[in-house]
Parts: sequence; structure tokens; C-alpha cells
Amino acid sequence: MELEKYRVLSRMARGMEKAELVFKNANVFFAHTGEFIKCDVAVAQGTILGTGSYEGEREIDLNGKYLCPGFIDSHLHLESTLVTPGELVRQAAQCGTTTFIVDPHESANVSGTDGIDYILEQTESVPANVYVMMPSCVPSTQVDDNGALLTAGKMKAYLENPRILGLGEVMDAVSVVEGSISMHEKLALFQGKVKDGHAPFLETGELNAYRLAGITTDHECVDYDYAMEECRRGMQVLIREGSAARNLEAIVKGIVEHGTDTDSFCFCTDDKHIEEIQRDGHINYNIKKAVQLGLPVEKALKMATIQAARCYGLTHLGAIAPGCQADLVVLDDLKDLKVLEVYHKGKKIEQEEKTEILPCAPKLKNTVHLLNLSEERFKLLCTGDKAHVIEMMEGQITTMDKREEVPWEENDGEKVFAPNASYQKIAVLERHKYTGKMAAGIVKGFGLQGGAIASSVSHDSHNIIVVGDNDRDMYLAVKELMRTQGGYTLVENGTVYDTLALPVMGLISDEGYETVQEKLSRMIPKAHEMGIKEGFDPFITLSFMALPVLPQVRITPRGIYLVDEDRMLKSPFDQ
Amino acid sequence: MELEKYRVLSRMARGMEKAELVFKNANVFFAHTGEFIKCDVAVAQGTILGTGSYEGEREIDLNGKYLCPGFIDSHLHLESTLVTPGELVRQAAQCGTTTFIVDPHESANVSGTDGIDYILEQTESVPANVYVMMPSCVPSTQVDDNGALLTAGKMKAYLENPRILGLGEVMDAVSVVEGSISMHEKLALFQGKVKDGHAPFLETGELNAYRLAGITTDHECVDYDYAMEECRRGMQVLIREGSAARNLEAIVKGIVEHGTDTDSFCFCTDDKHIEEIQRDGHINYNIKKAVQLGLPVEKALKMATIQAARCYGLTHLGAIAPGCQADLVVLDDLKDLKVLEVYHKGKKIEQEEKTEILPCAPKLKNTVHLLNLSEERFKLLCTGDKAHVIEMMEGQITTMDKREEVPWEENDGEKVFAPNASYQKIAVLERHKYTGKMAAGIVKGFGLQGGAIASSVSHDSHNIIVVGDNDRDMYLAVKELMRTQGGYTLVENGTVYDTLALPVMGLISDEGYETVQEKLSRMIPKAHEMGIKEGFDPFITLSFMALPVLPQVRITPRGIYLVDEDRMLKSPFDQ
Repeated sequence: MELEKYRVLSRMARGMEKAELVFKNANVFFAHTGEFIKCDVAVAQGTILGTGSYEGEREIDLNGKYLCPGFIDSHLHLESTLVTPGELVRQAAQCGTTTFIVDPHESANVSGTDGIDYILEQTESVPANVYVMMPSCVPSTQVDDNGALLTAGKMKAYLENPRILGLGEVMDAVSVVEGSISMHEKLALFQGKVKDGHAPFLETGELNAYRLAGITTDHECVDYDYAMEECRRGMQVLIREGSAARNLEAIVKGIVEHGTDTDSFCFCTDDKHIEEIQRDGHINYNIKKAVQLGLPVEKALKMATIQAARCYGLTHLGAIAPGCQADLVVLDDLKDLKVLEVYHKGKKIEQEEKTEILPCAPKLKNTVHLLNLSEERFKLLCTGDKAHVIEMMEGQITTMDKREEVPWEENDGEKVFAPNASYQKIAVLERHKYTGKMAAGIVKGFGLQGGAIASSVSHDSHNIIVVGDNDRDMYLAVKELMRTQGGYTLVENGTVYDTLALPVMGLISDEGYETVQEKLSRMIPKAHEMGIKEGFDPFITLSFMALPVLPQVRITPRGIYLVDEDRMLKSPFDQ
Repeated sequence: MELEKYRVLSRMARGMEKAELVFKNANVFFAHTGEFIKCDVAVAQGTILGTGSYEGEREIDLNGKYLCPGFIDSHLHLESTLVTPGELVRQAAQCGTTTFIVDPHESANVSGTDGIDYILEQTESVPANVYVMMPSCVPSTQVDDNGALLTAGKMKAYLENPRILGLGEVMDAVSVVEGSISMHEKLALFQGKVKDGHAPFLETGELNAYRLAGITTDHECVDYDYAMEECRRGMQVLIREGSAARNLEAIVKGIVEHGTDTDSFCFCTDDKHIEEIQRDGHINYNIKKAVQLGLPVEKALKMATIQAARCYGLTHLGAIAPGCQADLVVLDDLKDLKVLEVYHKGKKIEQEEKTEILPCAPKLKNTVHLLNLSEERFKLLCTGDKAHVIEMMEGQITTMDKREEVPWEENDGEKVFAPNASYQKIAVLERHKYTGKMAAGIVKGFGLQGGAIASSVSHDSHNIIVVGDNDRDMYLAVKELMRTQGGYTLVENGTVYDTLALPVMGLISDEGYETVQEKLSRMIPKAHEMGIKEGFDPFITLSFMALPVLPQVRITPRGIYLVDEDRMLKSPFDQ
């Protein structure tokens, strides 16, 4: 703090002058001690001056309402909800989350550092603190084609940026424990900083070796016992409760049952859709759910505030203490934890604030680069009797690798795969670098008939993925996404039913979340009508079909990938 | 960690190769979760590889004994115990304290950065981690003459030293809250680093302003309520239990009684003499005493380990977790907490290890620089009827300022002060810069007769202080300290009874603690024999007589200082 500023604030802190703003009669949550105490909180220039008895130029009488430090989401991806980063942050901020530790993994996989810059720029002036973890695994695998390679060398330029806190979720545990040079260059670059983990169910020795490499956190714990194994090793466990992955109940139940020391826990959402944020809340929902499961509210609040701040080295956040930023949440009570008001740097966040969509660099809206696209290329020749079929199971994103006879027909003297009600065609087209790479395969159990469904969101490389029961509609769907430069589309019998354009890196809409919700509310039911089983969210399920780390079989622009065997087949009819 | 090293350690952590050293069947204290769990601990190259089930090239079967991370003394002064830094550290390390956060405030006040370098060098290769906080208040006051001025500019050279963790105890709270430029230059220099506090009983607004300036800790809390006020404001309270100040019972009783969250507490000794370390222990004594007062042992151990490590940003210390330094303490049980073995970087600290005394730079042994010394200068003229008398009270270091008629005699036509059984003479002589400054005053209640007692240890400026009942013996005592270049001396009827030489900066003996103890065991009883009351430790009491921050009256080379009035008198007979 500048000395001149300090002198002014010090006089207010000492009561020699009125503070700019005083919250009177607040039931203040002291995060460091986990206590509620009724007193006043003095604020000036966005900073908390002190607690005690104060007079202010402006006074807000809280009449015993609860005043907490702003909540911290310790790990999330902003791109996954299809809306611009600012929109999501604004919605979540209204729920009391004033700090976001984001990992722009998806943006980086499409646009490299331009994608990271996009997230930084778009969140520069939101009413919240947005910090960025440098994506560590871009590309996330060697068997896929993504848009960028993010080396330690490229990361270097970001080291001095105060909004870059460390290295993003290190998914490639094998490279870590086996000591890969490129991985350890990144780890070394962020020495002394936080390195987020991603380590579901490592065996004890592997987990020790992973932690030995300096990994600090994990948000992939799905049960209490494993979470404790990580905590004991000095990792901070970020308890996740988002749209897809919901691990809070399992972990918090264990904590409550065992009376566990909660120092090593924080909260995160990882991915949470805007409509669910509006409906249920954000980190305040995690707190509320934990309290309902029996966790004392003081402990839940510490997880959501000071413990996350400490984990990420944010000494100016997470507490109502002198020198901390005045990020504050007013709660109605400690049971429903209803958020009445939220302040960021001492300024109230207006609930009605209009969603502002900031423009982005033109090159980020030009990322779908297909080569040699033709209907003919969707043809799948039957070069054997049996094919590897990707069998999908309702309610899951894992798949089974089945070898089966599949329907076929004669076509100009060729034996080609002929989709029917049970079997459809799936294709992935490289879209970043005009390589024209494309592979086709066979899915079972998805259920689409009389058309095609396509998306430019397909983890983690985000190529174009399409499923259909005829080549014409699949071709049309891909052409439609080329036109919109990314999005979700649904084609029915030769006609585009509807398209949600996601032109920003092929991941994000820039028309506002109202448009996104309106489109999805039409397209998703329609996709089910067209046969996609109710156990799938059509587009989200589609987005995982190309992720070559999930068992048992995936498809990439290079072919059918047998995950367990680490083997790529050019054609599903290959052995 | 170098990649090559990591690869080797990772293979051991994963059990692919035997670890160098494995502690088998240990009851391991997991500091992060506060649990004891029976398992093995693997170590190599001084680093903990992991916990679980391991085989080692070397195995130590602990048979269920308790294994804890090495303890951390979060605040102490190494100079105050009169022995070389290495001696004290070795003794304390044998009690399980493997990390010391030291503030070389005394050395810096005598020798500036040379004094700090001395502490750094002397503790470079001790079997423990010694970190240094940069003394913030050198000189500690403007009304005294010390040996050096330590500005932010001079501190800058130390910023990159990994053993310098931050700014040492900031005693001058007034300069902090009023925004003094020189103080805030120092605070700014250590931005983002720990800034130790020294803030006994600040009023709420002052405490807020003090914390607002970024002060991180305090070790001066003497009661629970004030400790909590500091904790709530985000300060870490270092609970002190040393030779002089003993605050543990008051604070821990409060914690136990209120079931207080203990996250914000650590332990320190501040000053603890080597004979007491040998008798009672060091930080292990703090733990034991806290447990006896009812604190769960897990909480006490967390205070002594992970919480201190976290407070000072020492991510490689304070836990038995992969990547942490293998500083380990084997405890016999959890009640008496008897320390059986201590390891530093995986190497056992031998209990019998010979005290090694390292040489120091010659200039540090030449710091007693008196000018114009003569017996004549000790004469105190009675220039008025009444004098300000420094009244001392047994068992206390505070004094009373009394205006009294005092005994006198005619001497060559002058009326001079004539000490008797009630009133003695006290004098302070500037000893750093050959200024020849000297002042004399009158003490009551100390009790010395038939001689003089003198010391070069006198907080915080460490000038020569002497008390006696005749000028000849006082002069002789000071001459003796000039000869030894510092120390404690006792003169009886014209003869030096004995002297403990403290030639290193006039603060430290380099003859080993056995010599120090042997000398003190003769000199202290002798001083009492000569009339010094039993309620005083003769030399320690003497060392505080010149500290011009303690009420009500002190003496400095500039004169008699009335602390409450902030007024300096050339002569005690001045109004």
C-alpha cells in the first residue's frame, strides 16, 4: 500500500476520522478463528480497515445480519458453460462468490496463449477477482490433434502476471511421476507457486511420487477415504460440486462422521452451468449443502474463504480483517444461507446488472478450419466382417469396446456401413490446422435417427464431432458448424433444425446466456425426440466421445482409439 | 528439485527401488489432518518420499513409537543466552526443535549487518534450519546511542537470501500506525513476506491500523482475550514460553476453556537459557505444558509444526509428507512426550555431539569503544536538594521515578552524591562509537554494597551499564569490561571478583556454555552476597535498566530518561 494511502486509512482505522463506509451491527464471521461476533466493520478505498466500533461517512445498519468474507471457487473452467466468462462470473458473484481460480484449459487447447489472454481480458473488469492457473496439459494427450502446444517456454511470459497464480490441473500423472522433461520444465517454472492436481485414485506409491513433484491440490476426489489420503500428504482437497461431478456429499459425510480436521479442504465447482447457478447458487450452495450434511457452518465457511485464500497465497482475501479487500457477503441466516447482498472492493454488486458482452479478438472467432470436406468422405467401407463398435451406456460417459457384425449395404460395388436404429456413424474432423484429418466409426446405444448431431466442443482437443444415421445429414451438420465457426447443431432429414453458434474458439456463444438457454431448451428435447436416449445429455455426451483418456474406446481424427490398449485403428474394421 | 534427483526419488516413492532409509511401524503424526496412523515412512537424500508400506536399504523399526515432524520455534533471539548461536541451536535441536526463526536484534544493535551476518554464518551448518528475520528497529529508540542504523537501504542486500524470511519484530508501533517514512520503507521492502509484530496491548483502533500495515504475527500476547483480538485480525499468535516471559498457561487455558479454533497459534521461546533447555526442554516443553493444560496433543503438535511452517511460508517443513525435509522427532509416548531421537535431513542428531565453537570476524570482538574514561567522571554532583531516584522493585523490571533527598558529602568543596546501603550510583557509558558519552544516576532498592557490578549487555543499545557504591570500583569494573571487550563483571573492594567475558559484540561468550554456566554459578550468588536482593537476577535486571521503553525511568548515555514524560535530564538533580 502506498504510504499516503496508508496514512489516510490508518487515521480512519484508529477512529480519528470517519471511515468511508461502515457496516453497523453486523454479525461478523471471523474466518481466522471461526467465530461470529457482533460488531462494526469499517471500509475505505475497497479495503477493510478494521472491526470494532466505528462511525462512517456512509453507514449500513445490518441489524444483526451475518457478514462473511466473499466466497472463493478454488477451481473452475469458465468456458464449459458456453457463455462468455464475464456472464458466468457476474451470475456467480451475485451468489457471493467473489473470487474465481480458473483454468482456461479448453481455450488453451483451441487457441493457445490467445485463449488464455481471452479469459484474462474478459474477466479484467468483472465485479470479482478472477485468477488464472496456467493450463499444464495442452495438448492433454499425444494421440489427438488440438490447436496449440503450450510449453514451459511459452508460459514464461505469464510468470510475472499477478493474476497467474500457478500451474493448472496436472492431468498427466504418468509424465509427472516418470519424470518427463517437458512436464518437469513446467513444474519447475512454477516452483514455489501452487500446482493444481488432477489425480483420481492414484495408488499410494504413485500418489506419493505425484505429491513429491510438488502438486498442491486435487479436485477430483470422489470419496472420503481417498480425499484423506491426499490431505495427509499435504494436498488441499477442493471439494467439487458442479453440474456434472458432485462429490460433496460423499466427502462431507465422511468428514462429519469422523469428526475430521477440515483444514485441508476447500470448495470448487469445476464446471457449473449458468442456469444451475441461477437456480441453486454457486459456492454458497456448496456451503449450504455441507451444513445440511452436518458440517458446522463455521467450518464450511472457512473452507469457502480463508482456507482457499491461504491455499492460493491470496493474503488479501478470505477474511474480514484489516488490510483485506472488502469482498463481503451479507447472509440472512445461517441455515438457508440466503445471500442478501454482495460487495466487491466495498462496492455493492447489483443483482439487476445487465449482462455485458465484451468483444474478442477476430482471430478467436475463426477457428474452424476444415480441409477437403465432402459427403463422400463420410462413407465407411466395411473392410472386415466385424467392427470395433463404441457402445454407449445411458448415464455414463465411459464406453465399451465391442467387436460385432454391423449392418451394411452394397453401394457402387462397395460394401459400406449402413446405420440403423441400433448403430449409427460417428466422425471426428480435425478443425484447427487445416490438416483435413478425419476418422469415422460406429456407435451403438446413442439412438439418433433421421438426422445428425454435431458439435465443436469435444474434450480436450475440441475438434468437430458428429453422429448421424446418414452421410448427407452428417455432412450438412459439419458444414453448418463451418458456417457458424463452431457450435452445436441438429440436422433432421436434410434440414438444419437449429444451431447454437459458439463462434468464440468454437466453445463460447457471444449472444448472451438467454440465447444459449433458449436454444438449448429447443434443441435438447428435439434431440431426444430424434431418438437420443433420455440417459444422455445429447451435446455433453457427444463432447466426451473424443476424449482419449476415458475407457474403453474413443474416436479422434486419427482413428478409433482403444484406450486400455493404447492402440489407434485407422478403421473400425481393423483388428 | 533437479529432474535427475526427482527421477531417482520417484522410483523409490513408487516402491520400484528400495528407499535409502525407512522408519518401519511408526505411529506417524500427519500434521495436515492431525491424525496418528501406523505406517512406514520412506526417506532418501534428506527428503521424505512418502508414507505407506516401504522397504529400505536401511530400516529402523520404531515398534509403534510416535514419529512427528521436527518442531519449529517461531520466534527467538539467539544472542540472549550468552553462548554462541550454534551451541544453543544444538542443545535445542536435541529436544526436537529442528527449525528456528531467529531475530538477531541484539547483534544488529551492536554491529549492524555484521551482526546479522554473524548469526547467519554461525548457524549455516548446524543440524537444524535457522532462518533469520531482519531486525526492524535498529536503533529501537531515538533517545539512546546504539552501534548501528539499519535502514531499508541496508536491508535490500538480504532480500534474495533464502534464509531471510521477512521483517523482525516491529516494536515501534507508533511509527507504524502514524506512517513514518523510514518504517514504511522497511515494511514495503518486505511486502508479501512475513512481518513479525511486537504489539502488547494495543487499543482496538491501533491494533487495526497496525495490522493494516501488514504485520503478520505477535509473540507478546500475555493473555487469551488479547491473543484472540489479534487472531481475529489475521495475526498469528506465537505463544511464548521462555526463561523470562511465560505466557503459555494464560493463553492455552483460555483456548481449552473456550474450545477455541487453534489455527492461528504457534509456539515460541523468545529467550530461553541453555541450562533451562537442558533441564526442561525447548518447544517440546511448550507442547507438553499445553497438553497438560488440556489441549489435545494433535492440536499442540500442529502449532509446533505445520502451523508455524505455514505462517513463515516454509512449504518444505512442518509435516511428514512427500517432498518435505526429513526433520523428524521420535517420541516415546504422547503424555510425557519424551524425545527419544531427532533427525535433521534424515540424519540422526547425536545427543553427545561435541559443542563446536566457530570463530568469528575479529572486528566483532572489538566493540567496546570508550573515550575519556576516568574515575573522576563517575562523580555525581548534587546540584539540587532533591534528585530523581530510580526505584527498583523486586521481581520486576519496571521502575518508579521518585524525587527524594539523597545522601551526600563534601569533597574538595563540592557537594557530591554519597552512596549508602539504600542508594547506589548507576552509570551508562556509550561504547560503540568513541563518543565518550556518559551519564550517572541514583538507584534505590537494588542493594549492592562494597563494590560494583557491570555489564555490556544492556537492552537494546548494549552500552556499558554499571552500578556500585563507590567510584573506584565502578571505574575498575568498566575498565575490566574494556579489557575483556565486553562481559559481566563483579568488583569487590578494589578487586575484580570474577568476569564472564562476552567478547563477541559484548554479548556472547566464545568459551562454551560450560564456562558460562560455571562463571554464573559463582558470580550470581556472590552478587547476592554483596547485597543485591534475591528478587533480582543481578545481570538480567541490570540489562534492562537502560531500556528506554519500560516505565517509569531509565538511564542512557545521554542522561536520566523519564519514559512517561519523554524527557531527558542531564543530571538526576535537574527538575
